[in-house]
Amino acid sequence: MRTQSFDLVVIGSGPAGQKAALNAAKMRKRVAVIERLGDLGGVCIHTGTIPSKAMREAVLHLSGLQERALYGASYKVKQDITMHDLLYRCHHVVRTEADVINSQLRRNGVAVFGGSGAFIDPHTIRITSDTDTTDVHATNVLIGVGTIPSRPHEVPFAPDKVIDSDELLTLKRLPRSITVVGGGVIGTEYACTMAVVGVRVTLIDSRPRLLEFLDDEIAENLQFRMRDMGIRLKLGESVSKITLEDGVVQATLGSGKRLQTDALLYCIGRRGATDELNLPAAGLKADNRGRLTVNEFGQTSVPHIYAAGDVVGFPALASTSMEQGRTASSHMFQKELMAERGEVAEPANSPAKLFPYGIYTIPEISMVGQTEQSLTKQNMPYEVGIARYREIARGQLIADPNGMLKLLFHPDSRRLLGVHAIGTGATELIHIGQAVIAAGMPIDYFVDSVFNYPTLAECYKVAALDGINRVRLVGRSAEIEELRPAKAA
Amino acid sequence: MRTQSFDLVVIGSGPAGQKAALNAAKMRKRVAVIERLGDLGGVCIHTGTIPSKAMREAVLHLSGLQERALYGASYKVKQDITMHDLLYRCHHVVRTEADVINSQLRRNGVAVFGGSGAFIDPHTIRITSDTDTTDVHATNVLIGVGTIPSRPHEVPFAPDKVIDSDELLTLKRLPRSITVVGGGVIGTEYACTMAVVGVRVTLIDSRPRLLEFLDDEIAENLQFRMRDMGIRLKLGESVSKITLEDGVVQATLGSGKRLQTDALLYCIGRRGATDELNLPAAGLKADNRGRLTVNEFGQTSVPHIYAAGDVVGFPALASTSMEQGRTASSHMFQKELMAERGEVAEPANSPAKLFPYGIYTIPEISMVGQTEQSLTKQNMPYEVGIARYREIARGQLIADPNGMLKLLFHPDSRRLLGVHAIGTGATELIHIGQAVIAAGMPIDYFVDSVFNYPTLAECYKVAALDGINRVRLVGRSAEIEELRPAKAA
Repeated sequence: MRTQSFDLVVIGSGPAGQKAALNAAKMRKRVAVIERLGDLGGVCIHTGTIPSKAMREAVLHLSGLQERALYGASYKVKQDITMHDLLYRCHHVVRTEADVINSQLRRNGVAVFGGSGAFIDPHTIRITSDTDTTDVHATNVLIGVGTIPSRPHEVPFAPDKVIDSDELLTLKRLPRSITVVGGGVIGTEYACTMAVVGVRVTLIDSRPRLLEFLDDEIAENLQFRMRDMGIRLKLGESVSKITLEDGVVQATLGSGKRLQTDALLYCIGRRGATDELNLPAAGLKADNRGRLTVNEFGQTSVPHIYAAGDVVGFPALASTSMEQGRTASSHMFQKELMAERGEVAEPANSPAKLFPYGIYTIPEISMVGQTEQSLTKQNMPYEVGIARYREIARGQLIADPNGMLKLLFHPDSRRLLGVHAIGTGATELIHIGQAVIAAGMPIDYFVDSVFNYPTLAECYKVAALDGINRVRLVGRSAEIEELRPAKAA
Repeated sequence: MRTQSFDLVVIGSGPAGQKAALNAAKMRKRVAVIERLGDLGGVCIHTGTIPSKAMREAVLHLSGLQERALYGASYKVKQDITMHDLLYRCHHVVRTEADVINSQLRRNGVAVFGGSGAFIDPHTIRITSDTDTTDVHATNVLIGVGTIPSRPHEVPFAPDKVIDSDELLTLKRLPRSITVVGGGVIGTEYACTMAVVGVRVTLIDSRPRLLEFLDDEIAENLQFRMRDMGIRLKLGESVSKITLEDGVVQATLGSGKRLQTDALLYCIGRRGATDELNLPAAGLKADNRGRLTVNEFGQTSVPHIYAAGDVVGFPALASTSMEQGRTASSHMFQKELMAERGEVAEPANSPAKLFPYGIYTIPEISMVGQTEQSLTKQNMPYEVGIARYREIARGQLIADPNGMLKLLFHPDSRRLLGVHAIGTGATELIHIGQAVIAAGMPIDYFVDSVFNYPTLAECYKVAALDGINRVRLVGRSAEIEELRPAKAA
């Protein structure tokens, strides 16, 4: 058994692993990627981000949700939507994306090993596939193994009946009713998707509200919209018992309520997929949810071993995982370079990055920068400017009256501090504000800028005028108010 | 007859007039708006921008265009689309927007006169309505009367058969085939809209290509897509004769070709609606297309009379008209203020504005900043970075493979100089680039930023990497290439 040596061995080929590998290859390092599944791409491509977004896109089209808003309920496009309909496009997209990753890695000379990786010692990893065993030597390691759904033994998992989020994609048909246990990003996104195609959804979470990292007002808007779609939200409630009898699933809540539905989606928590890594051989230990703790550069307690992506926990989004992967591999080789030169390895690069969050609920949500809560915690003064989609022509045209864009800014300098959006196109729109925050510009930029008409982007101007007006109200009254469209019905 | 006096009298209540009036009211000026139609809002709200966008939105939904791309031709939503379907939402939106304008003006104390305005002398305007005649005195005047379709006498206009673009909205039913004469913004937008609902469209323009102000590559992409939808483009051809016999319209081209269709939409040029203004009494003269010439502040040759919006010509977009109106009223009162102080009225404010263009063809188009052509004319070196929607996950999810985003930047400083986009969401996406141009940031900003995944906004990162790679190819080869997704099929 020959031992190959690499400057970096990446375990897992999801977004974190890919970007770490490509970034290192760009620096002319010898890089290997180990992937235990047959295909590259990780949860993001195969069971998570991409399939759920493909399903969401299908739901939006096939349900005629938008058409109903515009033309009334008679415009439902397809009466009986099947899982086949929902996954029609999914397979094509998954295949294409996996091919893109494969070709990117190979073009850049990254060695790809199929099999499970496990530490033999801190610098040696054994790769075991069905047919083969190979040991590789790694100067640096990046653990990007992602997560798997938690499956507590007291939950009676059963195909098509009591399922985790990975299994949702393999359902033979849509249930008429479903209980979703767990109101994190995954549970909330799927609850919306299923409700839109007519599944009766009950969502249970022990916390008092969904998605606690969101701005309060945006989260409230989401909950309002979800209930308005017919989703029953049971917040501040926990599930004490789940049973499956004669094809009926029953969830018993701590408060004594009993819910009977056709199916139950269990998505409380995901575990880091670290069980097979033999972490003790590397001098590492995962927490009780299989996760690894890292510093700001992605280093674990063993300095040459990094971790990135979902395995390090929140926010566990593809976009942030990519950035974590890139940051980690930049840091490992920068550190090396400085050590060669006899310099002290200082914190590597860059000012604090702006991480936008995109949540693909229906309506979709996005945010970047500070929240009211985080500013309050820092004792930083701020003012708020709000625009509702119904105030601008494009919001009327697309019939999304409840969409909103919210700006947080400093009342003196008027510098933009945070942007929060809910509604059509929120995940795209947020990047306008992100550029303005990054440039350190005040919200006056939006007032002075020309926006295409009619676009949702005009919300930035309306929100900025609203905000400036609120600041001025302290002194002269309502000076700017006239520029703000009236709240249309 | 009593004569009221105003600091500003605005003739016309479209986007230019509204913003001029509100801006002046904000400065505590006495302002009047004269509108000859029963309703406020101008062409933008009643026959132009908003109705055409409402119709476009309806077409996109009712034709199932997007669904067809995703699920194949069987997903056509509605088999027989009628004009009623297309205008179902339009009336509601028009009503709402007109109400918004009305309420804004009144809340800000702007006097609104219904009737036609005509100059008695440079400072006096007579307002004639069905019931009344009033003269008003104006210290300043803003002419924002917009345009009306040109109706040359040799064209045999006839209801439902040979029509102008205003009449399109009053068609009783959709023709099976139509000849569109004139490939400007209006003709091109309506050609796309009608083609999508299955009307057989032939578009004729004497110029060699559509929308000459667009980047060449974007215009080519548009023409490709239009032909691909079945639109017949006859470019570099002029119409020598139009006849209507037995309900069949025949257009004879200069080249001798004859085209027979159910209907013909004539949209070559629009005339400034200045005929009734009695311009000579103000010392003004319109050009042979009824338009007024103004300087950068919107001043006509008579310094206290300004003009803004479509009546001053290109680009004749609602967004730019608003800005022109605002600029004009800022200038008139700033000038006044400085004169009072004995200062010389210097060019008023602000660095050169970035005017984005949004064209609501199908696919939609947007641009901001420089084009390749304008940079070449200035002998300014530039490099190009391109991303195609099919290269990013979201482009796959929405099945818009031909969409593209193109960045122009300086090869040394890498400062972003221009952005050009065609495809889903182009008019919204452009504003990300606009903020980056305004901030003077290099395209490295996009490389270093985190984008929501999956979004179309990611195109900025892919295009920036492509661009940086092209610059580097001169020296070291393909260093960045690895970060660029492979061209997916």
